Amino acid sequence: MALNLRIPGPTPCPQEVLEASARPMIDHRGPEFREILLRVTSKLQELYQTKNDLFILTASGTGAMEAAVVNTLSPGDKVLASTIGEFGDRFIQIAKTYGAQVEVLRTPLGKALDPDTLRKALQAHPDVKAVLITHNETSTGVTNPLEGLAKVVREFDKLLLVDAISSIGSIPCRVDAWGLDVVTSGSQKGWMAPPGLSMVSMSARAWQAQAQAKTPRVYFDLAAAKRYLERGQTPWTPAVSVFYAMDVALDRIRKEGQENLFRRQARLAQMCRDGVKELGLSLFPDEAVASNTVTAVAVPEGVDVERLRQLLAKEHQVVVAGGQGSLAGKLFRIGHLGYCTEEDIRGCLAALKATLPRAGFQAVGAARRSG
Amino acid sequence: MALNLRIPGPTPCPQEVLEASARPMIDHRGPEFREILLRVTSKLQELYQTKNDLFILTASGTGAMEAAVVNTLSPGDKVLASTIGEFGDRFIQIAKTYGAQVEVLRTPLGKALDPDTLRKALQAHPDVKAVLITHNETSTGVTNPLEGLAKVVREFDKLLLVDAISSIGSIPCRVDAWGLDVVTSGSQKGWMAPPGLSMVSMSARAWQAQAQAKTPRVYFDLAAAKRYLERGQTPWTPAVSVFYAMDVALDRIRKEGQENLFRRQARLAQMCRDGVKELGLSLFPDEAVASNTVTAVAVPEGVDVERLRQLLAKEHQVVVAGGQGSLAGKLFRIGHLGYCTEEDIRGCLAALKATLPRAGFQAVGAARRSG
Repeated sequence: MALNLRIPGPTPCPQEVLEASARPMIDHRGPEFREILLRVTSKLQELYQTKNDLFILTASGTGAMEAAVVNTLSPGDKVLASTIGEFGDRFIQIAKTYGAQVEVLRTPLGKALDPDTLRKALQAHPDVKAVLITHNETSTGVTNPLEGLAKVVREFDKLLLVDAISSIGSIPCRVDAWGLDVVTSGSQKGWMAPPGLSMVSMSARAWQAQAQAKTPRVYFDLAAAKRYLERGQTPWTPAVSVFYAMDVALDRIRKEGQENLFRRQARLAQMCRDGVKELGLSLFPDEAVASNTVTAVAVPEGVDVERLRQLLAKEHQVVVAGGQGSLAGKLFRIGHLGYCTEEDIRGCLAALKATLPRAGFQAVGAARRSG
Repeated sequence: MALNLRIPGPTPCPQEVLEASARPMIDHRGPEFREILLRVTSKLQELYQTKNDLFILTASGTGAMEAAVVNTLSPGDKVLASTIGEFGDRFIQIAKTYGAQVEVLRTPLGKALDPDTLRKALQAHPDVKAVLITHNETSTGVTNPLEGLAKVVREFDKLLLVDAISSIGSIPCRVDAWGLDVVTSGSQKGWMAPPGLSMVSMSARAWQAQAQAKTPRVYFDLAAAKRYLERGQTPWTPAVSVFYAMDVALDRIRKEGQENLFRRQARLAQMCRDGVKELGLSLFPDEAVASNTVTAVAVPEGVDVERLRQLLAKEHQVVVAGGQGSLAGKLFRIGHLGYCTEEDIRGCLAALKATLPRAGFQAVGAARRSG
């Protein structure tokens, strides 16, 4: 039985993507890698729906978030950092560590940030330089209404840094149309490649901020990345095999068509949410803002989620994610971004159905189902 | 004809290493990855010849150098940074960027740092907190006498940060026996795996410095790495496929035996140096300190090194590296670290012999050969 990896990244990779990652090494400063780098960059710009500069870093998504912060802010800069969960908190931690004065705009877990709430916060703090937003909060399974939020940020003409790591490539995130200044992502999410690369796009407004930003930076310095990209290189040795994988994975996405992919992701997510409720379980987030890339399920009274996860893995080869940080034990998460089929979701739901009672699930669920 | 990749990293990977890197994704916070992480860490400690903590970062070697600096120094700390080439200069750049007060100890290109010179510099600057040393300088093909240099640093009881990216795993670098505090390396060098991971070991003395170091850090924070490693995880999503590759590559090294490997590397290097001189070419560095991982060859009068490299690649599938920075056009470099055989060196030398005259090489070389 093949592993049904239902976590919100690393996502399973199509066989041809895995095979591509096994290609022999080449000179990372030679003409062949140059072509790959320029090609992958250009495909990503297309899928980011942007004409902005885009850089591919050898780092995980958190590295790209750090790049977003250290390239645009100076110690002492005031920023408005919204958070709706663990990854919003991580963005805050990065900004604070590098000396930003952070106004935190916190939304209760399981809910999305409302554009009007953001507007009021910006009215209360007109002196902030930048706004930090998580597009899709993997820890709670919530998608923020980024288009509306970005519109508010544009009203106030602030710099907008977006953690789109678990959104872009899977759900609409239209960088230029929505005016997103700095947008991060990671190879192991919707792009269906192994982890090891992360991406960050930079608008003209972001470059203006970059020219003034005094936070020290070397490894994540995007000015160096830009200088090297002009000659078809990266400043530091890149994760060549993940580039091979991305090259093939992005072709697959372009062949499916990005809007078709968005529709497929939405369909899989709906199927997952419906199936979970059918089992008598409840979603953790408000359903209206539930993510199309990951479904967070509230752990019912009496259920030992660690035992549930162990049984799912051991007996059904289904791997779901637990809760992170303060959410440990309170929810589990089913990833359905990237390379995922209806069959995968059905298999996951069937395994849940078979396993839940042995993890302490009470019949009340069954009652609710027919209620 | 297979590519004869003779650059000092990425090095060619054995077929079983490439195949391993194509394995399907798994949960990076699950039991299977935990085992891989602990196993690879432990094998690396063995090959580092250390009982110190060792962390594997998803980043290239420059990221590990940055980790070494930001985890042990505070802005304003005085450091003695030795440099014998481009990578020493990079270490200096990182230390300066993060606010260290850097005393530069520069050795002419092509030569190694003499322990007595280091002793005098430390006598002249008794207030430095740390010493920065490049073990093997890839840009000039020189190996520093690290054992002797480390002994001097120990006399003065300073913290010793070592860039061992192109040395450890290929030539002796005995971390505990020599008292090296922070030692960096990269997966794509002697370890024979694809790029994407870098390593850094931390001595007890380094941890003491870490506890006081005020340089901001998130992505490269080794305290976070330590906390997560205790539960068999990395703080941020790791480059899983490069871990698969490292796991297999390190077994290969252990099977050969590390001392056998060091002898093989020395033999290949000698063969390369002899062959190059036989062709009438000169080594760039002093032969007494010439590296056993990369041979830097001085570009003879009249030779167009870019044309030479193009002909080698196009007609012989032999890829050698050019000169970096100020050394562009002055030398070319033949890598022989990692997965390399006598046949590879012979092929490279034969291709050079066939190609050199067409790149402008004069008969004076032939004369010298018989002189």
